[in-house]
Amino acid sequence: MKYLALLALFLVIVNCSPENTDTSVLVSNAHELSEAISNAEAGTEIVMTNGSWRDVQIRFVAHGTKDRPVTLRAETPGEVILTGHSDLKLGGDYLVVNGLYFKNGSSPSQSVIQFFINEDTVANHSRVTNCVIKDYNKSQKNIQDLWVLFKGRHNQFDHCYLAGKSNRGPTVRVDIEGNQNIKNYHKIINNHFGPRPPKGGPSAETIQLGNSSTSMSPSNTLVANNFFEKCNGEVEIISSKSNFNEFRNNVFYKSEGSLVTRHGNYCTIDGNYFIGAEDSPNIGGIRLIGTGHWVTNNYFYNLHGEVFRAPLALMNGIRRSAINRYIQVTDVVVAYNTWVDCKSPWQIGVGSNVDQKDVLPPSEIRSETPIRTLMANNIIFNSKGDQTPIMRYDSIDGIDFRSNVINNQEVEFEDVEGLKLMDFSMDELEENIWTPSSNVPGFKAYQGFEFDQISKDLLGHSRAHENMIGAVNDTDPVPPNIMDLSLYGPEWFNPNPEEADPKAHIVDSSEELVAAIANADDGDIILLASDLYEIHSPLKINRTLTIQSADRRQKSLIVYDGDNGTPAFEMNPKGQLELKALRLQGSGKNYAFASLKENMGSLYNLKVVDSEISDFEYVLKAYKHSFSELIEFKSTLLRSCKNGLELSSEDDDRGEYNAENLHVIDCLFEKVNQNVIDYYRGGYDESTVGGNLIVKGSTFKNSGAGEKNGILIHTYGIINVDISNNTFQNNRVKLVALLWGAKNNSESNNTLENSGQIIIEQNLPLKLMY
Amino acid sequence: MKYLALLALFLVIVNCSPENTDTSVLVSNAHELSEAISNAEAGTEIVMTNGSWRDVQIRFVAHGTKDRPVTLRAETPGEVILTGHSDLKLGGDYLVVNGLYFKNGSSPSQSVIQFFINEDTVANHSRVTNCVIKDYNKSQKNIQDLWVLFKGRHNQFDHCYLAGKSNRGPTVRVDIEGNQNIKNYHKIINNHFGPRPPKGGPSAETIQLGNSSTSMSPSNTLVANNFFEKCNGEVEIISSKSNFNEFRNNVFYKSEGSLVTRHGNYCTIDGNYFIGAEDSPNIGGIRLIGTGHWVTNNYFYNLHGEVFRAPLALMNGIRRSAINRYIQVTDVVVAYNTWVDCKSPWQIGVGSNVDQKDVLPPSEIRSETPIRTLMANNIIFNSKGDQTPIMRYDSIDGIDFRSNVINNQEVEFEDVEGLKLMDFSMDELEENIWTPSSNVPGFKAYQGFEFDQISKDLLGHSRAHENMIGAVNDTDPVPPNIMDLSLYGPEWFNPNPEEADPKAHIVDSSEELVAAIANADDGDIILLASDLYEIHSPLKINRTLTIQSADRRQKSLIVYDGDNGTPAFEMNPKGQLELKALRLQGSGKNYAFASLKENMGSLYNLKVVDSEISDFEYVLKAYKHSFSELIEFKSTLLRSCKNGLELSSEDDDRGEYNAENLHVIDCLFEKVNQNVIDYYRGGYDESTVGGNLIVKGSTFKNSGAGEKNGILIHTYGIINVDISNNTFQNNRVKLVALLWGAKNNSESNNTLENSGQIIIEQNLPLKLMY
Repeated sequence: MKYLALLALFLVIVNCSPENTDTSVLVSNAHELSEAISNAEAGTEIVMTNGSWRDVQIRFVAHGTKDRPVTLRAETPGEVILTGHSDLKLGGDYLVVNGLYFKNGSSPSQSVIQFFINEDTVANHSRVTNCVIKDYNKSQKNIQDLWVLFKGRHNQFDHCYLAGKSNRGPTVRVDIEGNQNIKNYHKIINNHFGPRPPKGGPSAETIQLGNSSTSMSPSNTLVANNFFEKCNGEVEIISSKSNFNEFRNNVFYKSEGSLVTRHGNYCTIDGNYFIGAEDSPNIGGIRLIGTGHWVTNNYFYNLHGEVFRAPLALMNGIRRSAINRYIQVTDVVVAYNTWVDCKSPWQIGVGSNVDQKDVLPPSEIRSETPIRTLMANNIIFNSKGDQTPIMRYDSIDGIDFRSNVINNQEVEFEDVEGLKLMDFSMDELEENIWTPSSNVPGFKAYQGFEFDQISKDLLGHSRAHENMIGAVNDTDPVPPNIMDLSLYGPEWFNPNPEEADPKAHIVDSSEELVAAIANADDGDIILLASDLYEIHSPLKINRTLTIQSADRRQKSLIVYDGDNGTPAFEMNPKGQLELKALRLQGSGKNYAFASLKENMGSLYNLKVVDSEISDFEYVLKAYKHSFSELIEFKSTLLRSCKNGLELSSEDDDRGEYNAENLHVIDCLFEKVNQNVIDYYRGGYDESTVGGNLIVKGSTFKNSGAGEKNGILIHTYGIINVDISNNTFQNNRVKLVALLWGAKNNSESNNTLENSGQIIIEQNLPLKLMY
Repeated sequence: MKYLALLALFLVIVNCSPENTDTSVLVSNAHELSEAISNAEAGTEIVMTNGSWRDVQIRFVAHGTKDRPVTLRAETPGEVILTGHSDLKLGGDYLVVNGLYFKNGSSPSQSVIQFFINEDTVANHSRVTNCVIKDYNKSQKNIQDLWVLFKGRHNQFDHCYLAGKSNRGPTVRVDIEGNQNIKNYHKIINNHFGPRPPKGGPSAETIQLGNSSTSMSPSNTLVANNFFEKCNGEVEIISSKSNFNEFRNNVFYKSEGSLVTRHGNYCTIDGNYFIGAEDSPNIGGIRLIGTGHWVTNNYFYNLHGEVFRAPLALMNGIRRSAINRYIQVTDVVVAYNTWVDCKSPWQIGVGSNVDQKDVLPPSEIRSETPIRTLMANNIIFNSKGDQTPIMRYDSIDGIDFRSNVINNQEVEFEDVEGLKLMDFSMDELEENIWTPSSNVPGFKAYQGFEFDQISKDLLGHSRAHENMIGAVNDTDPVPPNIMDLSLYGPEWFNPNPEEADPKAHIVDSSEELVAAIANADDGDIILLASDLYEIHSPLKINRTLTIQSADRRQKSLIVYDGDNGTPAFEMNPKGQLELKALRLQGSGKNYAFASLKENMGSLYNLKVVDSEISDFEYVLKAYKHSFSELIEFKSTLLRSCKNGLELSSEDDDRGEYNAENLHVIDCLFEKVNQNVIDYYRGGYDESTVGGNLIVKGSTFKNSGAGEKNGILIHTYGIINVDISNNTFQNNRVKLVALLWGAKNNSESNNTLENSGQIIIEQNLPLKLMY
């Protein structure tokens, strides 16, 4: 199928370029490449020989023509590896780059691929296709770069695969400062955006179009037919910050974020799929800010995000907003969409914070509800009824509802005129995709202003005849096959290679343990068969490893007598450690676990289960710019340590934090002197939605006596906190916790004995970030 | 010439509408009109019979087609007079209104003519042509209306004459709230905008397109080929507050204001004429705020405005500005324009107020200088050299100057690269229009990005060949004949009828004086031949009158003994009084001059020369919402009055004030107890540029003792104050004046004896208006 498409493309090119038998130059090193580029003329093809190209900074400046582009391609697509400190910059006209693979390195500049050399040499009408950038990260998450930076006009990025960006900066950004970069009609199409892990703070969008300063300018960028898989970097998967952009027929698959019209106006969001998961409260849909957006023919399934991550969020604006804050929603059209099994699919007035007008300046008060907004011809289907299919955060009087239909399984809710209750069923067209079994009976679509321009449905079927409400206008629709990954990204790249089965390594001595950790393959399990292991220097964890006692009832003891301030387990980028059924004992002056002090270019994870940890200066020390998606301690005893879990080094108050999730379940803390749990996020940033702390079923005894701030579990600025079913005994602190009432902080069913109290403060004073 | 054009138009219509012999209905009253409208079909023509139509509210709702519009026309153009409380609202498609004359009345609604009935019935593809609205003002200047209000799309207002609007509200406004009103492509063309007097405060634009709330939306309105004559309403003649508007080939003739891109972006200002006058510091050119405007092929002559009223003002913006404040200038192109004999033609960084950051909030600090802005291929010609052709209010580093030329008669100035000194001469093409005598020698135009789209010059001549810098690309140009008023407005209307010669009336008695004032014609002169006139009730002045002693060496005495609180001369709307060589004496409890207390629907003027005024409670009392363009006292004695000149009733602090100009020249104030001169403007509004006070060559003696604020000449908030060459003797006040250093307030050469002092305060605390 894909071969046929490529063949067709090839034939088109042949037809378009009668003289495409021009010069072809094979180059095998940077010097030859540079020379070939210097000599390139319209029609020249430069072929890079297969192999590893290290520290090559390609400056592809040339001038092709529409019929005779200048091409730079891999000898075999995917077999030319750009590595080390390599990057690619294009300048000129009608350039094509094909088949490169960036990995094992990072850009030496501000971007991996960019469509300009400098302000005088911008690329236009140029294309990068069939390429991969994978885990090509700067050495530390706070060092910013982009993987693809657009300038100029009429450039295209297609059939590429990008995954694993973990440092600061959007994966792809379009810049429109300067008249030569507006009305650019760039195309970002048919790409596979693979997993991007959460960053813990802002500036981790997958695509950003413009910025707030240029949000009055027309960008006219098209983002279409892409697959966004687990793009979890931050709350915005796509951040549209300019005018007249179009988002069509993309699939957002289990991506923790939303397509957001953050700044700028008059965007078209048509025919996209948003696929969620029952257990994720972080997967969102579309969030709207500003004027004149049209949201049509989209399909939303199994989304459980709330507020900023709602299936559809219409935000409140700020009165006379600054251009970098929240422009009121006006003149928006939401028509012919379908929501299936989404929780509270329509959330309106999101961000309303009029109740905080005493603690925030007027320029931060989102008081302006959506107005002149039309919601028409939409379908909501819930297989289980929903008590709040419309979530009102403020007045919804500015919205005109027309000819919408809901099947809510007869569960009552506060309804509106223009959303009609109706009994109808849905059929599964393919995995995740459900369409009405028949035309919603007798239901006539509302004909709004310029609705005749909504000419096709989700599946590309014409709406000219028998126009049905909802995303699909077809009583016998053809499955779109959205999960066929061969539709996206390069032909040659397999994003999901089969993983080898994990191997088990049984180690009998300290030396064997050290060797196994150094040599085991990713995913392997190390079984400790002896009672005692003595370790003298840090064990470096940079892969996925499980370490556990061979006999889980007979816990092995690891004694760490390394230097003061060094950790037994040094968590490196990509280190994913699970410890089970172990005892770990320190010198009192060294650490059990710590990240690197710097160069944490990727995240690490740590899970400790059914173990005992004692006699350390720190149980866990997370250094600045380190990040973990999950730190979990479960059924574990933490005893006689000077510090407990310290994840509070992000002290710039710019919304950053050290771990997305911190779970403490069924643990016992005893004689942990200070920083028992210290988890911090600073800066007022309403769109940061982490971190997440769960402390459950645990006991804290005789701890916290050395705590300077007098709080046992310190969660300042953390958005989601759940402290429940714990016991606190004889902890010499003023407070067990100080919770943030305005956010999702809660406590329940805790027993406090001689341990201070838990209090809730509605509004925390925070430094304004804007 | 014009007849030929009309004939041609007629022939076109005949050609386009093969069935234009459809129904024609003659109607002679409101009922018949309404019925005819109800019955109208495509092609119907409704003809209103000549005569006066009083209190008729025309609701013209009908549906024509492109080829067969529905027409409503005057039997004879200009002879159907809409009067009293009449207005016209259109709704539907393809409507034409032709030949109506609105006068002697005011709209009963929010506008005189509007292109919509209500939100559900908007006009599209409709046209109002060949009409006049004159002096059709609401009863008081604070009552707002519009004369023409656009909504919908593709409407046209052409060949009309509008003049004399003096109440609050733009003359013409385009509203773009709601998707049905954006991308409207309205045309405002070939109109004559006659004189609009200054209003004294904001909201008196001649044309406003959109507003700050909708300034992110595309309006695409065309304003072309209009004549703006003395449109002096406020600092903005045209206030563009939306995107993609075009201003082409208009003539701005001695209009005190500017074409301003106040909000919104990407406007085109091409081929316009800005004609000033040597003696006016108020006639401006183009003022730019925001992004992406193109200013090309414009011609500027004899402009002497400064700062906000500069020939070209590039403003500073506010960092992250609120949408109703000042967006930074970026991506602007100013190319192929010509400035002839303009004072400081390029004023850059206008509005910079970084030095006020201690007195204003950050959201009011205009610190962001213009960036990414190109000025290329412009000509400056000064017949007398200018010391500051480029006025820098802040850094100009963000501007790229290319291939500009100046002839500054060898006067030195701080120059920039990209503005070349050159010796060349100019020829007069027609009155006010000068073009280079030959191509500026050997000078090649800079070819900027998309400059190929500047395809024609000021005169419509192609730029394809021998492309010259400056507005004109033609070595032998044809005069554009811009002052031929028959090119603008309706054929049938004469905006400048010959005025009758003034008549002189000699009056010998009080009765004759009263009768003469009541009956004299506009412009007449009344000569007082007796020594004494006794007047018992106010003399109503509602025309232009001059009253003077027949023998100017022998001043007649008018004694006014009317009721307490009433004025001898009651200034009515349109009252223009000049008193010469008179003595005017009151009872001590009544007033010499006062406006009406309400219903000052138009302004008044007052000039008192060579006279004596004594024994009044007030010399002049200006009531709230009254306005005068000029109050002048010259060579006049003001004595023994409780209050002097009080123009301080606009106390809402919204930028309003009671007189544009207050002149006190060579006068003597003696024993004026309080409010000696009290002139007030409240509210922080950086774009209000009045009022104007001149106090010169006068003497103030023994005055101000009762002044509560302790200031003899109170000028709080007045922008331009000149106090010079006066003598102050024995005035029991703390201050003679408190001047505003940040504005154009100055004093010089005054003699102060036992009279307090004059101090200057740099920044006055003022209420923020926004």
